[in-house]
Amino acid sequence: MTDTDLALLDLLSARLGSGHVIRDPAAMESYLTEERKLYRGAAMAVLRPGSTEDVAFAVRACAKAHVAVVPQGGNTGLVGGGVPHKGIVLSLARLDRIREVDAFNATITAEAGCILKTVQDEAEKVDCLFPLSLASEGSCRIGGNIASNAGGTAVLRYGNMRDLVLGLEVVLADGRIWNGLKGLRKDNEGYDLKNLFIGSEGTLGIVTAAVLKLFPRPKARAVAFAGCASPHAALALFESLRRQTGDQLTAFEYMPRFALEIVLKHAAGAVRPLAGDHAAYALIELSSPDPEIDLSKRLERVLGSALEAGIVEDASIAASEARNAALWHLRESLPHVQRIEGGSIKHDVAVPVSRIADFIVAASAACEQALPGVRVCAFGHFGDGNIHFNLSQPVGMDKAAFLAQWKRFNRIVHDIVHGMNGSIAAEHGVGLIKRDELARYKDPVALELMKTLKVALDPQNILNPGKVVALGADAPPSLPVAQ
Amino acid sequence: MTDTDLALLDLLSARLGSGHVIRDPAAMESYLTEERKLYRGAAMAVLRPGSTEDVAFAVRACAKAHVAVVPQGGNTGLVGGGVPHKGIVLSLARLDRIREVDAFNATITAEAGCILKTVQDEAEKVDCLFPLSLASEGSCRIGGNIASNAGGTAVLRYGNMRDLVLGLEVVLADGRIWNGLKGLRKDNEGYDLKNLFIGSEGTLGIVTAAVLKLFPRPKARAVAFAGCASPHAALALFESLRRQTGDQLTAFEYMPRFALEIVLKHAAGAVRPLAGDHAAYALIELSSPDPEIDLSKRLERVLGSALEAGIVEDASIAASEARNAALWHLRESLPHVQRIEGGSIKHDVAVPVSRIADFIVAASAACEQALPGVRVCAFGHFGDGNIHFNLSQPVGMDKAAFLAQWKRFNRIVHDIVHGMNGSIAAEHGVGLIKRDELARYKDPVALELMKTLKVALDPQNILNPGKVVALGADAPPSLPVAQ
Repeated sequence: MTDTDLALLDLLSARLGSGHVIRDPAAMESYLTEERKLYRGAAMAVLRPGSTEDVAFAVRACAKAHVAVVPQGGNTGLVGGGVPHKGIVLSLARLDRIREVDAFNATITAEAGCILKTVQDEAEKVDCLFPLSLASEGSCRIGGNIASNAGGTAVLRYGNMRDLVLGLEVVLADGRIWNGLKGLRKDNEGYDLKNLFIGSEGTLGIVTAAVLKLFPRPKARAVAFAGCASPHAALALFESLRRQTGDQLTAFEYMPRFALEIVLKHAAGAVRPLAGDHAAYALIELSSPDPEIDLSKRLERVLGSALEAGIVEDASIAASEARNAALWHLRESLPHVQRIEGGSIKHDVAVPVSRIADFIVAASAACEQALPGVRVCAFGHFGDGNIHFNLSQPVGMDKAAFLAQWKRFNRIVHDIVHGMNGSIAAEHGVGLIKRDELARYKDPVALELMKTLKVALDPQNILNPGKVVALGADAPPSLPVAQ
Repeated sequence: MTDTDLALLDLLSARLGSGHVIRDPAAMESYLTEERKLYRGAAMAVLRPGSTEDVAFAVRACAKAHVAVVPQGGNTGLVGGGVPHKGIVLSLARLDRIREVDAFNATITAEAGCILKTVQDEAEKVDCLFPLSLASEGSCRIGGNIASNAGGTAVLRYGNMRDLVLGLEVVLADGRIWNGLKGLRKDNEGYDLKNLFIGSEGTLGIVTAAVLKLFPRPKARAVAFAGCASPHAALALFESLRRQTGDQLTAFEYMPRFALEIVLKHAAGAVRPLAGDHAAYALIELSSPDPEIDLSKRLERVLGSALEAGIVEDASIAASEARNAALWHLRESLPHVQRIEGGSIKHDVAVPVSRIADFIVAASAACEQALPGVRVCAFGHFGDGNIHFNLSQPVGMDKAAFLAQWKRFNRIVHDIVHGMNGSIAAEHGVGLIKRDELARYKDPVALELMKTLKVALDPQNILNPGKVVALGADAPPSLPVAQ
């Protein structure tokens, strides 16, 4: 560590308190690695400022010392976006106040370090819904949800995190604070600054607080499980539901036969949802704030017509909240049971909804041809055109030998996505793991624009350097060393 | 005109055809003024390119010659954003192709010059809805709707234009074309470029085409007119409707007693909607894609409870489509009848929905105190927190003497909006008319960020110079010369 670095840490300790400038390697460990242990980072210290002003102070000091700042929320990201390779980690965890709940404006103002579940709970206290819902909701933090423009299972009805943010407070690369905490439904006062920071993964500014949208809490829901003969039949079912139920359609999650089989094999308490066996399944949920509406009857009518039309082979509508939960359990167990089933090569991709069945068929065939015996586990947010196109290793194959084909399968799958004008980074972000893939597939003018914006807003390249776009010679490698 | 200018026009004539480089003063006239004749512009020519490539060619040529380019759609804007003060006008009117309709993806790809009504009609052909709805929908163009992030009467349910755009094609300040025409519901491939251009009023790039969202076409609707004792009672009614009907609530438009009185006095065919007289009125619409749902019954139940609770004094639910139209006619006649009633000083402002009644009461009192006899006509998109806070001249006062107080009333009203953390430019944009007001009220860091972005994306300041933010010494004056 240089004298300048030491002087910086002394300055920060004086302002934040030495207990909030962590330098002990053991205490830093959880900030330097991520959940799946794909990357191992390095940093000179971890800062835990307790206020927006202290975040601004720290960034200003780092900017003066030309030291990189890697912002971190709950460190639950899946693309290596929060892993440092130099400089300091700035944890937002202590900025965890709910600043305001305004039920009449249907907004909540939360600091970046608030756990997602806390925001959901605060909304419920005023009989409202904050709809963002993710597997990591008990530990991920709002700032990270904003930085990564998080998706999840409620996007079909409520949109991505981007759609749920009305205003932001952001610390810029030179330590200035932009206060854009407005809770307005209409605001055309110049350029849209907030969307520039949302989804920029901490590379353009550090979000310290946000005004988030709330919705009326649903008072009625109906859940069904349907079996179809093919992904194309599932698409026809989705289209029919969307047209007839509009915004009551809250979820349409897809899984193929293989996915249901491994859930039934490995997941505790999983119960077969339909008597027969089908090529493609959909988990469907309708909901409404109107407690008097009979959504089961509505679902029965639409599914009945789909049965008659030959779109659906069989369907079952849950008759109780316990049964609703049992059907959701099948879907939610998928990430877990895939791990039990062996190695997985994963893709988080999106195509236009009209192409989603074509994509599943084409990508499955290409992968099965490339490696006979590979088992396609393509599941997820079908109604958003977003599929987690995961590949489970062939039975009996060596796990490491299978995972060594990661880049080869990326190329096969991403080429098909690209050919359908899709996205190779649908809801998990770019971070490190997709940075070089993005450089390969993204429209060159778009990439140039991204670099122009990065240079304009962070001319020293100190905010989360090397993530999303690589600038400078010392950017860390994109793929994990293990690959 | 300099030799360089003449050479530029020759070059453009050779590429676009001389018929599409208009230099005749009479033919240029409609491009140099705007509807309300508040501004009178000047330009050396009007270009009418017929393709994205020709737009790019023209911008590249202008950039080389350091000549300003003012993009123009239907020229229906209300803030002087399309009025040139130098350089050339670039009309997008000939880029009017619908490139694709994808009903399964629920998207339409339209060029910037498409009339809004054309897009609505194309959507309807595939039994879908394109929800943007404005008074000027028969002549405004999609590119202008995007550049101004247009609002209108369907925002409560479907959002602003920003929320309806999935992808863009944009010609940049140096003539490069960014092709971002993706129709994806989820896409985290790096920075959000599209929202930077949406609402930037042609100052950062020229939109040439867009992928727009479609929705299931509503198959049922119910419309009601309610009378309340105060703006606060109207807010309680809105909140009650929102909670109980969720997304069925498509419109909640407000008007005070004075507004209904001048409609009944001047509008052809206007019929009194309720027997009695009330301080505040709301036009309410529920809609749903489900043809079997009984929305009138639902509305009756919610309004019945509101009557019992004393929130509503009287209400009437339309019993036919003809009667629905008659109620909407009352609201839609308002801009017209205000003109008949004399001079108006107008404000297009928004506050958090929870403050909207406070705002109406406070701003009305302040204006009435400032000029006894002034008649407040505060109406509009109450459910979005967006009010057209218009002032009709006192009876018998000289119109010019009243309009001479424009700046004084701006200060009174905008100070109150600012104090409530609101927006002084809610849905019409900034353009010229609010540019200097914006510089007064906007967070200074936000203004600096806007200038940083403008300089990064348009370093020569040739795209619609002087609008939204003033850079350089030769920016045109903000307020109309008449003020």
